Amino acid sequence: MSGLKMPEPDAATIARKSEIVERLRRIVPGEGVIATEDELRAYECDALSAYRQVPLAVVLPGTTAQVAAVLKLCDEEKIKVVPRGAGTSLSGGALPVTDGIVLAMGKFNRILEIDFANRCVRVQPGVTNLGITHAVQHAGFYYAPDPSSQIACTIGGNIGENSGGVHCLKYGLTTNNVLGLEMVLPNGDIIRLGGKHLDAEGYDLLGLMTGSEGLLGVVTEVTVRILQKPETLRAVLMGFSSIEAGGDCVAAIIAAGIIPGGLEMMDHPAINAAEDFCAPGYPRDARAVLICELDGPAAEVDHLIERVTGIAEGLGATYLKVSESEEERVGFWSGRKNAFPAVGRISPDYLCMDGTIPRAELARVLRRMQQMSARYGLRVANVFHAGDGNLHPLILYDANNPGELEKAEAFGADILKLCVEVGGVLTGEHGVGVEKRDLMPEMFNEIDLDQQARVKCAFDPTQILNPGKMFPVLHRCAELGRMHVHKGRLPFPELERF
Amino acid sequence: MSGLKMPEPDAATIARKSEIVERLRRIVPGEGVIATEDELRAYECDALSAYRQVPLAVVLPGTTAQVAAVLKLCDEEKIKVVPRGAGTSLSGGALPVTDGIVLAMGKFNRILEIDFANRCVRVQPGVTNLGITHAVQHAGFYYAPDPSSQIACTIGGNIGENSGGVHCLKYGLTTNNVLGLEMVLPNGDIIRLGGKHLDAEGYDLLGLMTGSEGLLGVVTEVTVRILQKPETLRAVLMGFSSIEAGGDCVAAIIAAGIIPGGLEMMDHPAINAAEDFCAPGYPRDARAVLICELDGPAAEVDHLIERVTGIAEGLGATYLKVSESEEERVGFWSGRKNAFPAVGRISPDYLCMDGTIPRAELARVLRRMQQMSARYGLRVANVFHAGDGNLHPLILYDANNPGELEKAEAFGADILKLCVEVGGVLTGEHGVGVEKRDLMPEMFNEIDLDQQARVKCAFDPTQILNPGKMFPVLHRCAELGRMHVHKGRLPFPELERF
Repeated sequence: MSGLKMPEPDAATIARKSEIVERLRRIVPGEGVIATEDELRAYECDALSAYRQVPLAVVLPGTTAQVAAVLKLCDEEKIKVVPRGAGTSLSGGALPVTDGIVLAMGKFNRILEIDFANRCVRVQPGVTNLGITHAVQHAGFYYAPDPSSQIACTIGGNIGENSGGVHCLKYGLTTNNVLGLEMVLPNGDIIRLGGKHLDAEGYDLLGLMTGSEGLLGVVTEVTVRILQKPETLRAVLMGFSSIEAGGDCVAAIIAAGIIPGGLEMMDHPAINAAEDFCAPGYPRDARAVLICELDGPAAEVDHLIERVTGIAEGLGATYLKVSESEEERVGFWSGRKNAFPAVGRISPDYLCMDGTIPRAELARVLRRMQQMSARYGLRVANVFHAGDGNLHPLILYDANNPGELEKAEAFGADILKLCVEVGGVLTGEHGVGVEKRDLMPEMFNEIDLDQQARVKCAFDPTQILNPGKMFPVLHRCAELGRMHVHKGRLPFPELERF
Repeated sequence: MSGLKMPEPDAATIARKSEIVERLRRIVPGEGVIATEDELRAYECDALSAYRQVPLAVVLPGTTAQVAAVLKLCDEEKIKVVPRGAGTSLSGGALPVTDGIVLAMGKFNRILEIDFANRCVRVQPGVTNLGITHAVQHAGFYYAPDPSSQIACTIGGNIGENSGGVHCLKYGLTTNNVLGLEMVLPNGDIIRLGGKHLDAEGYDLLGLMTGSEGLLGVVTEVTVRILQKPETLRAVLMGFSSIEAGGDCVAAIIAAGIIPGGLEMMDHPAINAAEDFCAPGYPRDARAVLICELDGPAAEVDHLIERVTGIAEGLGATYLKVSESEEERVGFWSGRKNAFPAVGRISPDYLCMDGTIPRAELARVLRRMQQMSARYGLRVANVFHAGDGNLHPLILYDANNPGELEKAEAFGADILKLCVEVGGVLTGEHGVGVEKRDLMPEMFNEIDLDQQARVKCAFDPTQILNPGKMFPVLHRCAELGRMHVHKGRLPFPELERF
């Protein structure tokens, strides 16, 4: 894999492996510590599988006290720690380091309390996203954020990445749905943030933790809010003769104050890939397809469908169909939900990007992206959460052609820089991780990054947690004094390719 | 006023007043620096007017560059800075210190950009909460959080306190409605957080800033989201024969998954005070009155009204009336909105408390509060955002009776401790400020407070910003090293009553 610089492994720590494993086993006895090469291979990567590194060891604690003791040991001994949920990160957030351990939270898989009166659920962080909904759906409730990986991904990982999904336009990201946390600081201290209630005093450390990509602490318990399932769900399928017209329709729906349950867009290559794959009934000649889902009481949904179809007609939609049955609604979605495997059939390889822009810039960004596609000589298929302005361009390439991966990566970086240029950001819901780490200076200047680093030092002064993720350069905490801010490259003097 | 310890003023700084004023005038020329005793009196307190202190000087900067230069000077010279919006804080968040300046943001009163396509507005922090709605209501939009002080309070102050209001049950607190900030750090560095887009990389400093009570930085620009006004608004007025039955009804509405636009409760003393004051038509014999407002498309509102009235009947409501006109709806609200002046007529003085509890604990907490009322021999009237579990007990007393204020304050502290005991928190929407600062250890242990202090040091290592607010003890940043956490009482060795 090309281009990624990671901290050089610390040879002294690697040389101490058997002693470290021995001390970890005293904390987590039995099969709770994995140390053989064969078994460690299962943890060498997450869903960004182009990057792989075998960790020194994997620890699977079963209690908060064990998590605290492991972190305290690692903090004192300066051993790096990569927290891991289900390993579904698309940005390499759980990529191991060869001179550190993986703290795998798989044993924290219990639902601790279901509290319908306060509309919340208290769970351990290893419970899957969909597991929360499964626990409450008998009473007509569900947990709103729904990343594509929701069968597998854990709520702990969702907090690390501030995960979204099709429904986050209306129901918010993870940060809008988490009420409380218990977490362990790198020094072994256990703190509780938030609870079942509305607000909390002091600085909003709960908000700060959400999306911090495992760099500030390890979550050991989570309280989330649950919502009642909508009474009715209906979807509108719309086709447009240009990608700009589709973008304008998204902007017009939002500007009219309508917040659909989901508002997704696909471009011509994605439409045709989906039709070839599972025939969802999309108009093949359309340059853009929109799926707009409305939810709520039946009367409200009928009313909103009328408004949305009116807007689409006014903007010259070439195709317009409203779902008249649950089967038809699910059919509309089948193409969108299978878009990734569908694109996988028309190209040997693809890169899935994730950027966010102000919604009004949608048409302009899509036009610029088509120009880039011509310049790089690489096709791009677009599938995205249009209502949020969250783009997922899929750059098609063939890794067997020398240099094509590098070209695809350069194209991807240009797309993300374009997102920043129009007032957007480098990520939507996949996190920064290692994937977009080196693009952070596109977004933040040195002052911004220094302030972020000072916050890191306030939680993890030894910098043991998830090193090499999110930020391009590591700072020595002592160097971040008010008057003398220098760039350090600690704890490793040299950054090397691998 | 009783009991409040504040840092002892620094005599050396006070002695340097004329030199400091001179240097401030070089940064903000003309009438931008106030230094005479008479003029300074206007700034001696905020809405918690029992506490008063005249500051060394008041600075009224007009540009971000001036804010940066003032903060840099104060940071270098270790001069304390109290940021101030409109001075409407109920917790003393803008209470001056005698050895520091007030940084009054009143000149930052411009609306910079209205962007309907992206459904957001960019403003300076001194724009009032209601001013944002006024700027966009011609197009059918509004800004959702609506504290009672919304005519006067500024969006900058709203960010400091994470303000709420009647609508925050459905539409969120300030933190859910702010998209971006420009702020100045104590060292004069200017950073931008968030923007018009959905998410941002890095740690969520935007969330951290919201509710930080002016202790981390000074906001100089704000981007907020705006919402479309609901098509229909109708309210249900309900009476119950016991306060527990009212609390049960609130819990049942929420547990059914209904999110009203507003869900307010008043108890027997508050009901009768309101009837005496403005005759809103409340049932005088009821022990609890609920006002439940539903908003949305007419069809949805009709449907929800049916469900809410069904729940109320099932729980034995003794009175039930649905508004059939806009005039009637406004009439239902008039008693609630005038509750504070109404209570002011039945008692010479009252203390307005602000705590939050898990909704399901409502009935139990109200019962315990009645027992406390008997024990203290002081009446209490309850007016609150019941749907959020946010209580505003008004403790009635007479300051002319020796010892009665102290008794009222002790009663208030007991109420807040009870909130914490049942799993709630010390604040709802008024902040901690100086009012509830000394109760923080009820909520947080030493480990929690140390972590909060480390975050403070990551922003304001010299601790010049809003000293004496929110946290009971000030820490010397250097003492917060990982291995050697001590309690310091810096920057002043002794805390004294005043």
